[in-house]
Amino acid sequence: MTTTPGSDAGGEIGGCLAHQEGKNMLNHGGIDYTTYLKLDQVLGAQCLQSEIHGDPAHDEHLFIITHQAYELWFKQILWEVDSIRDVFNNVGKGATLGATVRTLDEGKTMLILSRLNRINQILKLLVDQVMILETMTPLDFADFRNYLAPASGFQSLQFRLLENKLGLKQEHRVRYNQKHYQEVFKTHPQYVQMLEDSETEESLMVLVQRWLERTPGLEEDGFNFWGKFKASVMDMLGDELQEADSEEDPMIKEDKMAQYKKQRDAFESIFDEDKHNILVARGDRKFTHKAMQGAMMISLYRDEPRFHQPFQVLTQLMDIDSFLTKWRYNHVTMVQRMLGSKVGTGGSSGYHYLRSTVSDRYKIFLDLFNLSTFLIPRDRIPPLTQSMHRKLSVFDRNDDSGISLDDLRDLSN
Amino acid sequence: MTTTPGSDAGGEIGGCLAHQEGKNMLNHGGIDYTTYLKLDQVLGAQCLQSEIHGDPAHDEHLFIITHQAYELWFKQILWEVDSIRDVFNNVGKGATLGATVRTLDEGKTMLILSRLNRINQILKLLVDQVMILETMTPLDFADFRNYLAPASGFQSLQFRLLENKLGLKQEHRVRYNQKHYQEVFKTHPQYVQMLEDSETEESLMVLVQRWLERTPGLEEDGFNFWGKFKASVMDMLGDELQEADSEEDPMIKEDKMAQYKKQRDAFESIFDEDKHNILVARGDRKFTHKAMQGAMMISLYRDEPRFHQPFQVLTQLMDIDSFLTKWRYNHVTMVQRMLGSKVGTGGSSGYHYLRSTVSDRYKIFLDLFNLSTFLIPRDRIPPLTQSMHRKLSVFDRNDDSGISLDDLRDLSN
Amino acid sequence: MTTTPGSDAGGEIGGCLAHQEGKNMLNHGGIDYTTYLKLDQVLGAQCLQSEIHGDPAHDEHLFIITHQAYELWFKQILWEVDSIRDVFNNVGKGATLGATVRTLDEGKTMLILSRLNRINQILKLLVDQVMILETMTPLDFADFRNYLAPASGFQSLQFRLLENKLGLKQEHRVRYNQKHYQEVFKTHPQYVQMLEDSETEESLMVLVQRWLERTPGLEEDGFNFWGKFKASVMDMLGDELQEADSEEDPMIKEDKMAQYKKQRDAFESIFDEDKHNILVARGDRKFTHKAMQGAMMISLYRDEPRFHQPFQVLTQLMDIDSFLTKWRYNHVTMVQRMLGSKVGTGGSSGYHYLRSTVSDRYKIFLDLFNLSTFLIPRDRIPPLTQSMHRKLSVFDRNDDSGISLDDLRDLSN
Amino acid sequence: MTTTPGSDAGGEIGGCLAHQEGKNMLNHGGIDYTTYLKLDQVLGAQCLQSEIHGDPAHDEHLFIITHQAYELWFKQILWEVDSIRDVFNNVGKGATLGATVRTLDEGKTMLILSRLNRINQILKLLVDQVMILETMTPLDFADFRNYLAPASGFQSLQFRLLENKLGLKQEHRVRYNQKHYQEVFKTHPQYVQMLEDSETEESLMVLVQRWLERTPGLEEDGFNFWGKFKASVMDMLGDELQEADSEEDPMIKEDKMAQYKKQRDAFESIFDEDKHNILVARGDRKFTHKAMQGAMMISLYRDEPRFHQPFQVLTQLMDIDSFLTKWRYNHVTMVQRMLGSKVGTGGSSGYHYLRSTVSDRYKIFLDLFNLSTFLIPRDRIPPLTQSMHRKLSVFDRNDDSGISLDDLRDLSN
Repeated sequence: MTTTPGSDAGGEIGGCLAHQEGKNMLNHGGIDYTTYLKLDQVLGAQCLQSEIHGDPAHDEHLFIITHQAYELWFKQILWEVDSIRDVFNNVGKGATLGATVRTLDEGKTMLILSRLNRINQILKLLVDQVMILETMTPLDFADFRNYLAPASGFQSLQFRLLENKLGLKQEHRVRYNQKHYQEVFKTHPQYVQMLEDSETEESLMVLVQRWLERTPGLEEDGFNFWGKFKASVMDMLGDELQEADSEEDPMIKEDKMAQYKKQRDAFESIFDEDKHNILVARGDRKFTHKAMQGAMMISLYRDEPRFHQPFQVLTQLMDIDSFLTKWRYNHVTMVQRMLGSKVGTGGSSGYHYLRSTVSDRYKIFLDLFNLSTFLIPRDRIPPLTQSMHRKLSVFDRNDDSGISLDDLRDLSN
Repeated sequence: MTTTPGSDAGGEIGGCLAHQEGKNMLNHGGIDYTTYLKLDQVLGAQCLQSEIHGDPAHDEHLFIITHQAYELWFKQILWEVDSIRDVFNNVGKGATLGATVRTLDEGKTMLILSRLNRINQILKLLVDQVMILETMTPLDFADFRNYLAPASGFQSLQFRLLENKLGLKQEHRVRYNQKHYQEVFKTHPQYVQMLEDSETEESLMVLVQRWLERTPGLEEDGFNFWGKFKASVMDMLGDELQEADSEEDPMIKEDKMAQYKKQRDAFESIFDEDKHNILVARGDRKFTHKAMQGAMMISLYRDEPRFHQPFQVLTQLMDIDSFLTKWRYNHVTMVQRMLGSKVGTGGSSGYHYLRSTVSDRYKIFLDLFNLSTFLIPRDRIPPLTQSMHRKLSVFDRNDDSGISLDDLRDLSN
Repeated sequence: MTTTPGSDAGGEIGGCLAHQEGKNMLNHGGIDYTTYLKLDQVLGAQCLQSEIHGDPAHDEHLFIITHQAYELWFKQILWEVDSIRDVFNNVGKGATLGATVRTLDEGKTMLILSRLNRINQILKLLVDQVMILETMTPLDFADFRNYLAPASGFQSLQFRLLENKLGLKQEHRVRYNQKHYQEVFKTHPQYVQMLEDSETEESLMVLVQRWLERTPGLEEDGFNFWGKFKASVMDMLGDELQEADSEEDPMIKEDKMAQYKKQRDAFESIFDEDKHNILVARGDRKFTHKAMQGAMMISLYRDEPRFHQPFQVLTQLMDIDSFLTKWRYNHVTMVQRMLGSKVGTGGSSGYHYLRSTVSDRYKIFLDLFNLSTFLIPRDRIPPLTQSMHRKLSVFDRNDDSGISLDDLRDLSN
Repeated sequence: MTTTPGSDAGGEIGGCLAHQEGKNMLNHGGIDYTTYLKLDQVLGAQCLQSEIHGDPAHDEHLFIITHQAYELWFKQILWEVDSIRDVFNNVGKGATLGATVRTLDEGKTMLILSRLNRINQILKLLVDQVMILETMTPLDFADFRNYLAPASGFQSLQFRLLENKLGLKQEHRVRYNQKHYQEVFKTHPQYVQMLEDSETEESLMVLVQRWLERTPGLEEDGFNFWGKFKASVMDMLGDELQEADSEEDPMIKEDKMAQYKKQRDAFESIFDEDKHNILVARGDRKFTHKAMQGAMMISLYRDEPRFHQPFQVLTQLMDIDSFLTKWRYNHVTMVQRMLGSKVGTGGSSGYHYLRSTVSDRYKIFLDLFNLSTFLIPRDRIPPLTQSMHRKLSVFDRNDDSGISLDDLRDLSN
């Protein structure tokens, strides 16, 4: 699975030293820093078009370096996203052999967490990195921008792959110049292939949903969280209605009643699966009904040991969306400064197109943000049964078929 | 002047598309993003040694990307440092043809300023970037660090070039394993040559000093700043002595007297050129006596238009030192976390060596930091003469031989 | 001029130690850190409503501290904005006595610059500070948010004052719950008064415009920049039209023609003062026609010494807008996470209202961003006359009536 | 337990609205933003000494605001540190009633983690905040610094409290002017009392150690981690010795032998409890021998579910040290710039004193950084027994007396 233009990810070593060669080299005194990092290759990749055209522009060097640094980090993020998807799927190094169902080994949640955190640290850097390009003035940019046409950031394969692998759907994209986003890659058939693959593979979004759907406690014939949650909400709404009803001041009454109705309608949209699905079809919600239940359960009972890390995972997923939108926002601000409403080098109406991507449509884990709408006060959260409480103290690990009584006796010593 | 392993800087286009080719390509529809940024080359340069050894370690990818990103930015900083040195020397694009003396065209101070500022923005990013590598744990690092030996950050050619071009002197370096810092490059003779060149070229430090030495107002037969400044300090010290003398409380008197002597000795070290030179020989000061006078003059009269930008330049130079030491400090903290007091992959005792470079010895513009020791209250600053005041309102530009009376008449309309 | 609820700014010392008292204290051993910073007062101002209601919520402490830290910094920003306005107006300490016209002393541009830069450093911190509040989860917030009603960030007097003093106009504000923004302050008549004052005083925006309108070179009977700029643009458009006309490929021709027309229309909107004024009336532009000419002149000739700092001022003004919108954006993202689409404590529909303020309507210096639309290539910039070139080498300072020939003779030595 | 000058922490509400009052207010329409945040008090606390002395200095306002913002955040950090210590001690809201031994409820590790993370987010902000004060120049500072004497940052009660509560010991402090650090507080007896209390209370360091000492797996009659670890290390050292012995090249042999001895000595210092204690007495180590074993166990088996969060806790504790030292470092750099080697307002030799606090002596959790010295390759880590493996899948929670067989049967369904 080659993920990027020059990628050696996933096992094959094209372009890298062959296995044997590498070993030989090591025998003869090892590898040095420059060779290891292939610096000849990396530091020899800055070709100023303005120089080639005989009209060197000092700032083009910054322009190239900045974009290359972005692409290096994009490659790293893709590397992490791919590995996280593998862990969710229980494949790859350390996976349980012979496991029939591919589900997350709960012992691996920390791994997911630490890699999501790494992605966020990188994204935070990329958000700040925008400021460096802002040290170039519009006039300095004008000195070489004509030489770049039609190259454009819209042609960043890795950024599109990232969006797809996270789970951005084709139908949620804003059309750019009325065209399919793959259009710009048409001269690179292998890129188009990679993009199509990334659309058909299971995205992080899909895997997260499947994982949420299996949240312990959702079983209708078990703890039946959703049933209990709904009952509690109904109680709460009932109390609110009564309070509104018994209000004497007509203006306050009206206010309270309006408030009550708004709440009731909001909750109806999650309890009524059909209404939920309509919102999904419209793009206003993205999770399946069951996944949403799982996310809500984890949020409300995050203090239980078994949910500690799943709750952190949900937080990190939101952080990814936050940083990506902040990046989009900083990027569009920079473009406005640099180009005003000029047409971009790629032919798109730059600023306006980019501005439209800073929107909730581009948030993959939008439902996690909106979850807060449905939070209920702590004293209304359905209490755990003893058995559920215990269940949330013990991890489920794929490496054995369950805990035997013998093991348990051993444990209780 | 090839500045880095794969550099195309300075005019020749080795590795880049030849001039004609470039133009042809443009005729046939131009260049695309991937080609422009040579992404095949850049994104194909991540070869995991752990993979080559048949024992892939996930985090080695991060390790490589991080270091490559550092090197890309180092190349950009070198690009800016080289250009700033050219501007100080009045060479390169836009230089005054036929100028006999190579001095800074004051019209170009803003250019210097904006490039210094860019360097600082980049350094700030690099300081933050350290945190990303900290997402790798020591145990994860242990999974592949043996495969890297003897590669080591000590072998970063660009970082050494940067230190030299800024003006770090060989004799101020801490010896690493008792060896000359060029030792690690001995298998790359061309690198050793580049390092030696960078030691013999005029460093930024040297150029800044020469520029400061020409600060208007230093002329002994003119405004004679240093004479006036010294007289004012003597006055101030006299008043302090008198105040101490007339103090009645013996303990306070002793305190004041001690304070007075400390001040007097400090000022003596700048007024007595011999004492100053002893400190320079010892490495406790770095500027020539005259350059120090210029820096002091600019600091005290920074409100005069002609000194606005020189003052900002001095501030940016200090920022470079600040960020570099912060980077060294963050780096050493990360190394301690990763390796404890283990021996580094390059064979050095990592932590302790690095810790010793976080020191004032490595500050190039140390004297600018210490200038504050010698500041005097605003009301003791020698007043400008009318003629000096005027002089500091008019810029000196290399593009003409001086301002003729005709021009001046024109101006005064 | 008391700028904030508890302000001692602007001279009077309400709440501070009286002059004499202060001196006495100093005589008796001076002041200590706690007293100086009034820490009893500052650190005694955290009253948890949840505690008062007998139901202490740990995270309310963070909520209070964060908002107080914001307000402290807002006070500092107001302090700087007020001082910058004074400098533009040539009032306050250091102003030229007896100056009949209140215009900026060019010797003070650096002061403006350093204070604008300080504002931006603070705003950058405030943007980052949002992340701290995000360490509170929605459920933790739910524990105390009911006790806060109807307190709301919409009631931050200082933030509204800041918007007004920068130059945000009432008509560009998004209506919040269909109400005038002063509505929330109706129980504090003195705040309403302060807000009204801040609307009628000359805002930074107004002062910046007045300054730009006086940019040297705009004089129609002098260098006549605008006339020359227009001629150059016309030339450029003519060339583009010709190029389009002579294109043989019909599709490319159509493209080029469309591009030409778009450009022509854009330029028409700045050359035709009536069209410009229509855009201003609509809120799509904000500068007067003359101020826009000044900004363009400075941008194109920023390499001239006298424009170095004005150009930096323009950049810093854009930075203020950028940081403010980034802050708004980060803030709204945090609110979405915390509340979903719940109604905010102040009764507003939080998320949606805030989302609508992240818009170009709220950018004060919008025209500076859009300036890039009208940049022309360096080789089309009208050349300076010798006299203009000289003029841009000499600063205009209020402290004398002009440069006499005697002075000039002195200078030319 | 009043923690700070004006603190209302810990239950009593001095200075806050009394309980009843608060409720009344709420009944009459609730509280508004300004009242809630006590902005009159907070924003009325900026008294410029320079103004009081009739010589207003613009930048003193920044100086005050910056320090007040620091103190606000210090209060927040103390609030979190106190609460974390309570959770470690199993006291406070949510503690298990009637628990005889005060030990951490493992269900609360996430709470600790999220609060440690919050502290680190705040510290990161404080590190960046130093740059804002750097916008003030030394000359601007000189305009008012004389009025502040002898106020000094050394008099920050909260910072000293923080150091003590984290666990900095008196004997590890650098003496400042040869004096005990409490000296500067002698005119505030209640502060001295608070400092002494903070020294005698159990610090976070003490509580962390006690928690580490109870790490499951350390029991000598159980899994006996330390015994197994030592055996594995001995094996490893044996192999290294053999490899060195069988080396033929005499120079490489010498190298390998030296390396082996260095390793052997290092490990001896942790296996030999007496040697360990000597290092502790010297201040080179800080943990008890048992606590160090716990930290090592958690680091090596961090992939086990029950150690996921403890491992993150260790990481966050190191982050606190890292940020504090970075803050110290940035602070000292700023002081050097502002004062050179001038004597500080508090009478200390500022720069040199502060420089000496940027040292490993001030790292509370120093041993966690040095742990990496003793890491062994993954394949040498002693394998878990089945019983130990299970034990590390189940959380220990204080709320029941153990897991009964019935519960277990329930679980295994």
